Amino acid sequence: MRTSSKQSELVVGLNIPAEIGMDLSEVATPALIIELDAFERNVATLRERLAVAGVRLRAHSKTHKSVDIAHYQIDHGGACGICCQKVAEAEVMVAGGIADVMVSNQVVDPNKIARLAQLAKHARVLVCVDDLQNVDDLSAAATAQHANIECLVEIDCGAGRCGVQSSEAALEIAQKIESCTGLSFAGIQAYQGAAQHVRDYAERRGKIGAATGIAADTLALLTENDLDCAIVAGAGTGSYPFEAASGVYNEMQCGSYIFMDADYQRVLDAQGEYISEFVNSLFIWTSIMSKARQDDAICDAGLKVMSIDSGLPVVYGRDDVEYVGCSDEHGVIADPGDRLRLNDRLKLVPGHCDPTCNLHDWYVGIRNDKVECLWPVSARGMAF
Amino acid sequence: MRTSSKQSELVVGLNIPAEIGMDLSEVATPALIIELDAFERNVATLRERLAVAGVRLRAHSKTHKSVDIAHYQIDHGGACGICCQKVAEAEVMVAGGIADVMVSNQVVDPNKIARLAQLAKHARVLVCVDDLQNVDDLSAAATAQHANIECLVEIDCGAGRCGVQSSEAALEIAQKIESCTGLSFAGIQAYQGAAQHVRDYAERRGKIGAATGIAADTLALLTENDLDCAIVAGAGTGSYPFEAASGVYNEMQCGSYIFMDADYQRVLDAQGEYISEFVNSLFIWTSIMSKARQDDAICDAGLKVMSIDSGLPVVYGRDDVEYVGCSDEHGVIADPGDRLRLNDRLKLVPGHCDPTCNLHDWYVGIRNDKVECLWPVSARGMAF
Repeated sequence: MRTSSKQSELVVGLNIPAEIGMDLSEVATPALIIELDAFERNVATLRERLAVAGVRLRAHSKTHKSVDIAHYQIDHGGACGICCQKVAEAEVMVAGGIADVMVSNQVVDPNKIARLAQLAKHARVLVCVDDLQNVDDLSAAATAQHANIECLVEIDCGAGRCGVQSSEAALEIAQKIESCTGLSFAGIQAYQGAAQHVRDYAERRGKIGAATGIAADTLALLTENDLDCAIVAGAGTGSYPFEAASGVYNEMQCGSYIFMDADYQRVLDAQGEYISEFVNSLFIWTSIMSKARQDDAICDAGLKVMSIDSGLPVVYGRDDVEYVGCSDEHGVIADPGDRLRLNDRLKLVPGHCDPTCNLHDWYVGIRNDKVECLWPVSARGMAF
Repeated sequence: MRTSSKQSELVVGLNIPAEIGMDLSEVATPALIIELDAFERNVATLRERLAVAGVRLRAHSKTHKSVDIAHYQIDHGGACGICCQKVAEAEVMVAGGIADVMVSNQVVDPNKIARLAQLAKHARVLVCVDDLQNVDDLSAAATAQHANIECLVEIDCGAGRCGVQSSEAALEIAQKIESCTGLSFAGIQAYQGAAQHVRDYAERRGKIGAATGIAADTLALLTENDLDCAIVAGAGTGSYPFEAASGVYNEMQCGSYIFMDADYQRVLDAQGEYISEFVNSLFIWTSIMSKARQDDAICDAGLKVMSIDSGLPVVYGRDDVEYVGCSDEHGVIADPGDRLRLNDRLKLVPGHCDPTCNLHDWYVGIRNDKVECLWPVSARGMAF
């Protein structure tokens, strides 16, 4: 019906919403933007706090999935390396030049184990283990590749997800790791994920106190048995001050601190204030696409550009309008003062940063309302 | 630290979880799989039902974002064309050879309007309008491109999202469209999105009855004023029998019917049964990655491979286990009988198909437990 010569004129692009040097107002909506001053301030803040505490940072790249940001965290943020959650993420990071990568998760599928062993020929690779048979499988793959994989025993310290249930079980796995070719024992993974978003300070401190007790007991039993835990890892943006001060943990795995999100900003500190050391640097840039009613407006950012698992986004810097409803491609903005007009732009703070970033192909880096950089979300969708 | 020659050995792939001919058991997890027999049956079922009703299908590609599936719906499913929600989706579809595309949404940004006008040189392009100024802007762009854009007036028939609030407002916009160069008036968009997932049959019928009344009133006023509505469009998988039988609507915009999801299967028909004419064809293929406790298991499918905005996924074909908790990269599977083991595979029916598909790069097409095809999610992430 249409000639192919006409079709060939079409250029379907790389889905890049901006060009470097462009004004923010010209960035296509919806887009994922980073305010670079705020981002850099967050990176510096955590670096300084952990330096004072005398613990390492192994920044979690599951938040951003970006090779550029991982390099920035290592070069400027004091990170000794990064964490990933998936082998495919680790492959992207190592291919992008990151030399020290922990998969802070179990890798049990035979094909994934083979890929992990392959990867260990190119970078320092660490992985978490909570099963004896898995140790054998990792050892066989690493040995076949003449590679070494460093293994941490993961303990369940309250999150009720992965991890062994007792210090004795951890000891048994650690001893097995130590006895296997191709593997070396690196320490303990003790991440209390269920504590990160607990609003109340005392309750959050209590959960991390309990986790620290479990980690300390396991550490003591392993040490008694001549197993050296070079790494005792855990902590996230919501809880790291506790782990950093614990005397037990020595490696922090914070991720969200670089961006923050609406849910993390409902978490309170000791003074009953919102966590205040980090600021919002990540936003969904959206525009008004329908204004057929006085009391509300429709924006072009819905479920396909942000995750609402932890609540709706918050309109940044405006208290006269509110994001009140989210469908696949639309957001309903309550506009009681009838202030919004077609093509007006808004910045939304997403409810939950990690799964929001995973929906986008590009970060648009903004400084002084100009596009300064474009960073691909290098490991977006890398789920296996 | 590592030599670049070593790094260059790394092959970071296209994120394809399978190869054609592979057994399903070998597909990397988590992956998005289509059971092709079920998919084809769904496509045939709607084709037959709409043929009997004597209405057209303009299948909604926002569900699948796949050029391959769009072609299949046109070639085998009776579709006269497709709907998209975004200009970027429409660009992908037209570049992929789809010749008849409606953007069932407002396009008001100047750059997007220019892209839409450009696209209209390569395919039949339709768009929805609910604002007078937008008509001028579309006309200017289409005229500059020597193109024609077909415009539908969108009316709000109960969803409270986009669309004008009265028949008189619709008439004013329709007359303006008819008077503008570069545009032609195509009819009415009257989609009641808020009715699609209403569980109760009578309540759902009531909402569509009200929407049909609004559409009929607008249709009558436009017809009285010599405006021919070639298209009266709306309907989705949850409500199409009502619109198809209404005598008012003539073009159905169903999307989810090809896949179904856990939420649509909570919608009841007249007999109080779940909507029964369509079957589950879309699944998240997942595996057990941690089994450190008797009563539950951890699978590798979380928020980053499926959207839980409409509820948690359902484990398909098993009543002995249940998906009870979802975090970014993990799912908690209650396993009261302690039946699951590491590397066991499960099929999950996602809670909401559209935003789930948008998280993946590939559909893995399965027939008789073999990989038959790999379809890219061509317009994944195309949000602007």
